[in-house]
Amino acid sequence: MLTAAFPGSFDPPTFGHLDIILRAAAMFDRLLVVVAGNTSKKCLFSAEERADMLRSLAGERKNVRVEICDSLVVDFLRKENAKLIVRGVRGAGDFSYEAELSAVYKAMDSGVETVFMAADPGHFHLRSSFIKEIASFGGKVDGMVPPLVAEALAGKFGRG
Amino acid sequence: MLTAAFPGSFDPPTFGHLDIILRAAAMFDRLLVVVAGNTSKKCLFSAEERADMLRSLAGERKNVRVEICDSLVVDFLRKENAKLIVRGVRGAGDFSYEAELSAVYKAMDSGVETVFMAADPGHFHLRSSFIKEIASFGGKVDGMVPPLVAEALAGKFGRG
Amino acid sequence: MLTAAFPGSFDPPTFGHLDIILRAAAMFDRLLVVVAGNTSKKCLFSAEERADMLRSLAGERKNVRVEICDSLVVDFLRKENAKLIVRGVRGAGDFSYEAELSAVYKAMDSGVETVFMAADPGHFHLRSSFIKEIASFGGKVDGMVPPLVAEALAGKFGRG
Amino acid sequence: MLTAAFPGSFDPPTFGHLDIILRAAAMFDRLLVVVAGNTSKKCLFSAEERADMLRSLAGERKNVRVEICDSLVVDFLRKENAKLIVRGVRGAGDFSYEAELSAVYKAMDSGVETVFMAADPGHFHLRSSFIKEIASFGGKVDGMVPPLVAEALAGKFGRG
Amino acid sequence: MLTAAFPGSFDPPTFGHLDIILRAAAMFDRLLVVVAGNTSKKCLFSAEERADMLRSLAGERKNVRVEICDSLVVDFLRKENAKLIVRGVRGAGDFSYEAELSAVYKAMDSGVETVFMAADPGHFHLRSSFIKEIASFGGKVDGMVPPLVAEALAGKFGRG
Amino acid sequence: MLTAAFPGSFDPPTFGHLDIILRAAAMFDRLLVVVAGNTSKKCLFSAEERADMLRSLAGERKNVRVEICDSLVVDFLRKENAKLIVRGVRGAGDFSYEAELSAVYKAMDSGVETVFMAADPGHFHLRSSFIKEIASFGGKVDGMVPPLVAEALAGKFGRG
Repeated sequence: MLTAAFPGSFDPPTFGHLDIILRAAAMFDRLLVVVAGNTSKKCLFSAEERADMLRSLAGERKNVRVEICDSLVVDFLRKENAKLIVRGVRGAGDFSYEAELSAVYKAMDSGVETVFMAADPGHFHLRSSFIKEIASFGGKVDGMVPPLVAEALAGKFGRG
Repeated sequence: MLTAAFPGSFDPPTFGHLDIILRAAAMFDRLLVVVAGNTSKKCLFSAEERADMLRSLAGERKNVRVEICDSLVVDFLRKENAKLIVRGVRGAGDFSYEAELSAVYKAMDSGVETVFMAADPGHFHLRSSFIKEIASFGGKVDGMVPPLVAEALAGKFGRG
Repeated sequence: MLTAAFPGSFDPPTFGHLDIILRAAAMFDRLLVVVAGNTSKKCLFSAEERADMLRSLAGERKNVRVEICDSLVVDFLRKENAKLIVRGVRGAGDFSYEAELSAVYKAMDSGVETVFMAADPGHFHLRSSFIKEIASFGGKVDGMVPPLVAEALAGKFGRG
Repeated sequence: MLTAAFPGSFDPPTFGHLDIILRAAAMFDRLLVVVAGNTSKKCLFSAEERADMLRSLAGERKNVRVEICDSLVVDFLRKENAKLIVRGVRGAGDFSYEAELSAVYKAMDSGVETVFMAADPGHFHLRSSFIKEIASFGGKVDGMVPPLVAEALAGKFGRG
Repeated sequence: MLTAAFPGSFDPPTFGHLDIILRAAAMFDRLLVVVAGNTSKKCLFSAEERADMLRSLAGERKNVRVEICDSLVVDFLRKENAKLIVRGVRGAGDFSYEAELSAVYKAMDSGVETVFMAADPGHFHLRSSFIKEIASFGGKVDGMVPPLVAEALAGKFGRG
Repeated sequence: MLTAAFPGSFDPPTFGHLDIILRAAAMFDRLLVVVAGNTSKKCLFSAEERADMLRSLAGERKNVRVEICDSLVVDFLRKENAKLIVRGVRGAGDFSYEAELSAVYKAMDSGVETVFMAADPGHFHLRSSFIKEIASFGGKVDGMVPPLVAEALAGKFGRG
């Protein structure tokens, strides 16, 4: 039983995140999507809102579970008995950052292993910060996020 | 009649921006310099100040027009009937970001095309944020920005 | 009348090259596709074969012309009175190389300007060398090159 | 039963390759190490020599099997019923290349998925071509390759 | 007498900083560690705290001196008669930024030269911002910073 | 007495190499320019020709010596009692390669330290392979290499 964890901010979830979730869920026995509940980044959506969106989006997959993590990711994984982290990488710049992060995880818990999946090239521009900026101007984000996320964004920016 | 648009924050304009403006104005029939009026970034200069500086700097070019954009760039371009965006790229790191941004523009309006121009190597260190930091300490920025911008910076930091 | 030139080896042409040709032809008045006839690289197809394939592929575009260049690109462009070079860029690694090359062109003829277009993300893996390796093993390259190129590759590797 | 494949040239195997093999073997049910038997690259060691070295090195792992592939990797994997490729990545430059390659694999067989593992930072300089150059001068490669590979290199360069 | 300066924020100092200090001190006659006292970045530790930690860490090296700089680095170096700046680089992304910064230094004082040292690969994940985030959650940072820094972090986050 | 070594192929020397030599000679007590005499790369100029050109170019600097190395660089440095290697870096892509190489040097001799200098931005396109290709077509390389190298290139390509 190989349990992989996919940690992230998901503020909000994009088609890029969803693609990684579906591909990882097809590959591993169980996938735990870990929503960072308590980060230094200011988030638009609360951890509960982000987790709810992810549960709606990935709900049909039996082997996917979504949880909020309020502690360090490695501590959370230890309690869940998950030793494998999955991260999507959109390009070479992302990779440098992600490789550093994976070294940090390993420094904190030598039993944790990270694997990277290349984002679908059609998703490489799906950066949550871009999407929030577009939505804040009332721009269309239909091709970038699932409908329920587009609605949630419209709601946040007073256009729901 | 090929109209190209060069959008940016220009906070403040540097010799790097000016170089792209002059090279693009020599290449295309018309060039529209689009000052982001309403961004998530905190700006030192108001959109009007930035547009005024750009008008003074590029004023002798008959085919250059400077406008402030308070909406999404793609919406602004549509109204101006401009379908071509020009962006300067200072290096590989810049390119990754710019390629993402161009994919976002295309996702929002499939008729918009982006072309990139390599910054003059002698300008590759001209990052507006560095220049503001130097000016805030009273450092000389003469080789980095045109005289009127250097004066404006000195004014902002109480050394005018 | 703005004439742009798109120089390359095109050994063989891929869907990535074709996409740049069509996008550049839609943007500029005239596009000159310049096939490197005499490079240090060993080519699988002769310059004539590569030019013929490109003519067949881009033939319906009235403003596209394909020529073989046996001299330095900048000398060739000067004779054709073309001052603008177009190059597709697939990623940050490509960009570093292309920016160097554009600086070389400018060093050789200060009147030559290069603009870069980001490859369609769905084409970013279309590297001619990969395609030739796959074809040499009899692998399918249908989604990577137009049918007439796929046939030409099969012919070269004795599977036509 | 999740079978992962780790394809490569392994000319010769380094401590970097061995680390990926051991980490991947610990993660997946079965690991198939696939030695490229027939590539466009000139190899110092024959495919049989490379496979034998890998078998000696990874032999104690029950779930690791080493095979030589003389066809396209995706065709080989299909016959082995392996749908997951593992690749080590030493840095951002590597990643760009590897992401392209994974897109090529997917273009050839949409059922094939690639995951990347970051090389151990202490191995990021272990490039087979460097190691062969050092060995060709009689330099010590003890910290870079396992003893049996060091001996094999010495033998190839007439110092065995 | 070759005096090199190593400027930085050091908020807080890591094993990566310490490694560069020791290697540079072994190479140059004198090393001046320059703590940025007045930056646009919000710091967790005061300039005095950061300088004190560095003095404790590098104190046994006779040729190392730690100073706080409240002006522009190039102005500070001029007063200290130091013309050589040393900077550690953790990877390709870092290098782009550092090369820009070195061009800025040279633009401000053409007599200033910068040399770069590659971070020890085992330190490439030691980013001060990661370390502060981990410490803020009560995570262990023992392998990332010297004991006195780990204690200082614990003190800041109310776990001293 | 700090002796730095600048190893390279120098096939042929460019203004970029010369710039690094002059800047390093100004910084260190002695500079040893080390011409790779025996590499896997095919060279246009013999090691003697390359060393002679470098001696003519750097001859006025009293503290610069040019030598040919037919063994491993680290072995050569040990005999010369030089423990510091200087390398020019033209960009992020270069840096990744150079950082690997410096780790290889350190793995072979832990007492060897490498420092990197950023190439002058105006030289970042001066890649020896480009220059040889241009010269082979009879193109002008005046701004890229010193006059005596331009003449030597013309001689090699039958245009002297």
